[in-house]
Amino acid sequence: MPATAAAPAPARYDIEGFLKAIGDVPVTTDMQRVRLRSRDYFWYSPVLNKQLHGKSADVVATPRNEADVMRVAAACAKLRIPLTPRGGATGNYGQAVPLAGGVLLDLSNMTKIEWQRPGVIRCEPGLKMNDLDAATRPNGFELRMHPSTKRMATIGGFVGGGSGGIGSISYGGLREPGNILAARVITVEETPRAIELRTDAAQKVNRAYGTTGIITALEMPLAPAWPWIDVIVVFDDFYEAVQAGHEATLADGIVKKLITPMIWPIPTHFNALKAHCPEGKHVIFAMVAEPSLESFKEIVSRRGTITYEQPHDDSPGKEPLYEYTWNHTTLQWLKQDRTITYLQCLFPHDRLLDSVRQMTEMFPDEVLPHLEFIRFAGLITCSALPIVRYTTEERLNEIIALHEQNGVFIANPHVFTLEDGSRHKATGADQLGMKAEADPYGLLNPGKMRTYVPVKS
Amino acid sequence: MPATAAAPAPARYDIEGFLKAIGDVPVTTDMQRVRLRSRDYFWYSPVLNKQLHGKSADVVATPRNEADVMRVAAACAKLRIPLTPRGGATGNYGQAVPLAGGVLLDLSNMTKIEWQRPGVIRCEPGLKMNDLDAATRPNGFELRMHPSTKRMATIGGFVGGGSGGIGSISYGGLREPGNILAARVITVEETPRAIELRTDAAQKVNRAYGTTGIITALEMPLAPAWPWIDVIVVFDDFYEAVQAGHEATLADGIVKKLITPMIWPIPTHFNALKAHCPEGKHVIFAMVAEPSLESFKEIVSRRGTITYEQPHDDSPGKEPLYEYTWNHTTLQWLKQDRTITYLQCLFPHDRLLDSVRQMTEMFPDEVLPHLEFIRFAGLITCSALPIVRYTTEERLNEIIALHEQNGVFIANPHVFTLEDGSRHKATGADQLGMKAEADPYGLLNPGKMRTYVPVKS
Repeated sequence: MPATAAAPAPARYDIEGFLKAIGDVPVTTDMQRVRLRSRDYFWYSPVLNKQLHGKSADVVATPRNEADVMRVAAACAKLRIPLTPRGGATGNYGQAVPLAGGVLLDLSNMTKIEWQRPGVIRCEPGLKMNDLDAATRPNGFELRMHPSTKRMATIGGFVGGGSGGIGSISYGGLREPGNILAARVITVEETPRAIELRTDAAQKVNRAYGTTGIITALEMPLAPAWPWIDVIVVFDDFYEAVQAGHEATLADGIVKKLITPMIWPIPTHFNALKAHCPEGKHVIFAMVAEPSLESFKEIVSRRGTITYEQPHDDSPGKEPLYEYTWNHTTLQWLKQDRTITYLQCLFPHDRLLDSVRQMTEMFPDEVLPHLEFIRFAGLITCSALPIVRYTTEERLNEIIALHEQNGVFIANPHVFTLEDGSRHKATGADQLGMKAEADPYGLLNPGKMRTYVPVKS
Repeated sequence: MPATAAAPAPARYDIEGFLKAIGDVPVTTDMQRVRLRSRDYFWYSPVLNKQLHGKSADVVATPRNEADVMRVAAACAKLRIPLTPRGGATGNYGQAVPLAGGVLLDLSNMTKIEWQRPGVIRCEPGLKMNDLDAATRPNGFELRMHPSTKRMATIGGFVGGGSGGIGSISYGGLREPGNILAARVITVEETPRAIELRTDAAQKVNRAYGTTGIITALEMPLAPAWPWIDVIVVFDDFYEAVQAGHEATLADGIVKKLITPMIWPIPTHFNALKAHCPEGKHVIFAMVAEPSLESFKEIVSRRGTITYEQPHDDSPGKEPLYEYTWNHTTLQWLKQDRTITYLQCLFPHDRLLDSVRQMTEMFPDEVLPHLEFIRFAGLITCSALPIVRYTTEERLNEIIALHEQNGVFIANPHVFTLEDGSRHKATGADQLGMKAEADPYGLLNPGKMRTYVPVKS
């Protein structure tokens, strides 16, 4: 069964009936704008780019509050119109692309902060992560982790479509217990209900692409807002860079937010930082808490040379190092050269360095390692988003298979269903169950959870 | 060679010459008080109790500042008088016991805070850890880790004689890079020098019992001061308690400072907490950051029952849970029954639960497991301070050997030399080298670093 088979063909929906039913909820029907907002960053993948090109909603609704969301949900349920929620649409898996048309629910105007207390914020899903941090920093706090798209992305989009990022080196991913405290979701029923999912139950909406309910509030744990220092370290040998990064990551006394080894020639695509990335040198990009800087430098200087050291600043007009890491690494290269793509790997923690070396040597100059040190289930390992010189879809799948055969897990970013993109090739039982409860008619982002069979018709 | 062979026999020293040389540095020569202050908590060990009983300095000097320390050091060097530094003397290895008599240097009056900045404090060594926290808490910070003796112990004594404790579950021990930022030490020479040891170099004075220089200032990294919650969880089965503790420790999204599983009947000795420690139940004592409490409870409640949950408070008159953990567990039992003693174990991280079960079953009712979850070299494992029903020194050594034969490291708390007490049965090369530099005549706490041969006579 081809991956697209599960996506219902776009159909005519009763859009006029919908518009009447939702009253004064703001909408856009201008098709040029609707089409623009129906896209995300799926084009990093040549495979998804072919499959998702041209998919579009019929109308964009932009709720101001939860009452608006409920009106939209009720109307969609009554009229059986697909409903795809989105935040900043900065994802790379087509999460926010409405495969079957219908209503695109743009939550980016719901930005209210409900409350803050030390270490916790409760807010609406459309709040941009940079604005969230700006609101919590005066109290000494910030998000524990964020994607490299922090300055554009929303907290709801991150929870709904992301998994981790800058900060996961200390806290692990969003899926770790304690990293999402609660989510409030609206069901898509004739009479929508609000359901509060606390602690583990909140995982039912984490990286579910909005298929298991519409998030209207999130309670997120915060981290102390350290003064971070952006650091670049350069190395003659890539494995020395990995080793140095591993040593610094294992040092629990060193407070850090990011340690990213990248092989040369990846840094040749970092135009603004060329002065700090000498020809032929492999690099580590890092964010280290100021009190830990001296200890960090001592460890990495045994193998490498520090070429850049600046207080971290991601205010407008500034260029934080994290915008060269995670999937921004791929973006920096794509800006100059559209022939490459990328993968998402998880290396085994217990033979990390050997495994990195093995995979690097298997695909010389074809798969260029870009690693991200993270905690995963309490252990230190590397996730990776290597640059792949793309030739054919067959070769890409062969590269994926060779990784998996050698114990490197792949979260495939060249598929758009939850099942195919997961490490386990399945949707968690909890998420399937939650979908039955929140989306009995199968209207939420249809085609993304392909194993779901609607419980009502 | 018996362990005591390296300790020079007490001798007559020129104490009068010493008193003349040090001018107005405060001293005590009242022998009853000198003898009292020459002791620490070595009596937890029946073996050390026999060996160290009656050892005493000839005079106690109580410097007010570094200049005083230098005068004492110079006088001791000139007159070849042994010099043993001490802080709160809350250690259990006889660290602060002057084997060869001479001068006991009580640093507990040197309590000045030099400066604080976000995440770092620089202070004199005699500052009590509770006073340190009281000074940093208004700025949102506290020590990353402390021993269970926090309310009596000094920061200098902890660095000089300790290794980790409450907080090591998140930050590892003092030996991890980044956990001691700098130490300033005074050499014992005719003309004493001050040496600043930064980052890794500061490890030369960590757990060296004051043999490698006299600490006069410490720069310590701080942690965010979370509102901690003290929690007791009880379990029908001890291994379920260990499993629950392991799961909660592995969850990097849960901020914690302490997770301590203890087998029944250990809690029967916790008089003040009997209402929360039902007969026959095994327990976890924990400290969890308030924002993580709900997630923590969800994990442990799958296997156990919460019987106690109170905001942490270690101000005077209060009884924080940590005073039932680490070596306070042993103390609580010793208060009622002096026939027991303890060990210090480090379990293998990669077969933690199996190893705990194996050792528990090997010594039924003789070695009672009390575990402490910690990070060690970037990995989660358990340190342990089991209660040992003491019979003979031979049996104690047999128990130690059986642990080591089964891959459980022992840091033997029944010996008083650095070498015998370490996992590697050796002093780090760095510490030996530092001693040659700081103590050419071998006057600093003689007998504790038994492999050192003075470079001058």
